[in-house]
Amino acid sequence: MEDREISQAVIGRLPRYFRYLGELKDQGIEKVSSQELSDIMRVTASQIRQDLNNFGGFGQQGYGYNVGDLYGEIGKILGLHKEHNLIIVGAGHLGQALVNYMNFERRGFIFRGIFDIDKKIQGTQIRGITVRPMEEMAAFVRENDIDIAVLTIPKTGAVEVAEQLAGCGIRGFWNFAHVDLHVPDNIQVENVHLSDSLMKLSYNILSHD
Amino acid sequence: MEDREISQAVIGRLPRYFRYLGELKDQGIEKVSSQELSDIMRVTASQIRQDLNNFGGFGQQGYGYNVGDLYGEIGKILGLHKEHNLIIVGAGHLGQALVNYMNFERRGFIFRGIFDIDKKIQGTQIRGITVRPMEEMAAFVRENDIDIAVLTIPKTGAVEVAEQLAGCGIRGFWNFAHVDLHVPDNIQVENVHLSDSLMKLSYNILSHD
Repeated sequence: MEDREISQAVIGRLPRYFRYLGELKDQGIEKVSSQELSDIMRVTASQIRQDLNNFGGFGQQGYGYNVGDLYGEIGKILGLHKEHNLIIVGAGHLGQALVNYMNFERRGFIFRGIFDIDKKIQGTQIRGITVRPMEEMAAFVRENDIDIAVLTIPKTGAVEVAEQLAGCGIRGFWNFAHVDLHVPDNIQVENVHLSDSLMKLSYNILSHD
Repeated sequence: MEDREISQAVIGRLPRYFRYLGELKDQGIEKVSSQELSDIMRVTASQIRQDLNNFGGFGQQGYGYNVGDLYGEIGKILGLHKEHNLIIVGAGHLGQALVNYMNFERRGFIFRGIFDIDKKIQGTQIRGITVRPMEEMAAFVRENDIDIAVLTIPKTGAVEVAEQLAGCGIRGFWNFAHVDLHVPDNIQVENVHLSDSLMKLSYNILSHD
């Protein structure tokens, strides 16, 4: 694709546009100006125009944006028109919470398999998906066209598991393990480091004392 | 405090320094140069020096950093030397996962109360903490010196709950609800928008097709 150059900051803002446009759409609103979008999103209208211009711009001078079209276009840019096949490694509380969260499925992120090292929960089901032993993971990924692996395991095992999965055709990791993964450049990593996020909140509270 | 000017980007990197220094400390390593830290963290040595200089710098020319001291100092900057009292609103899967995650408590983030709108789970316990009805929340926050509220509820209720809590002396929100909160300037918000994160991963996978 031609838009490799777009900064991660812009990419990071796209889901937020998608969310607000989805809400406008649900309310039956058909068009919105960058100024109106600016007011509800609390970012400047010029920021909105700049961000959307990265993708060719969608607005029409004097009309604004067609909500449904823009929603659809941003969804496509985000790859939400395609289905993603996911596995989750680590069926603890967090893993269970993610599997049970229906919104991911609505967006096309489908959990196909769950893996855990703990023999006691292997064979049990979470939302109808059987928890399998780690030994079956590599073959499962290859046979089920899995493109995203969600890691909800302690950091001690995460690096090794990521290496194994990188060799099986995984294209992206959604990493909740509290460790940085080093994988080949063609594999994407999106980290959710919950402790880091909480520490940042702590800092911001303290610095406003 | 005097360091209001420090960018959120720098603040966002501090927990990562803290994590790596903690690991070096656990390995019994006493000193580290910015070059060595650069190698293991995969950021430039000059970035490390710049980041740490925001807080007065801790290194000594020709010696590097004392691991234990730097770890302690960054912990203080992050406010981890103080205990935080937390409540969590929403005792679903995600809320349970967070309450059950011991690492937060080790860092001084103590869950004091859990609240949920669902009468069926009110009165049950999660890790020894009773789930209470929402009606008791405001008084509980005031009486127990709660400074952080974790919101793991659907977006429909989150804005209202945040407004109510903002009036009870809460100083920070750790917000997992898929909505932006608008609270007074003296209250900090740290968002964990899981869907946004997953969409960003989807974009990055697609753009590397």
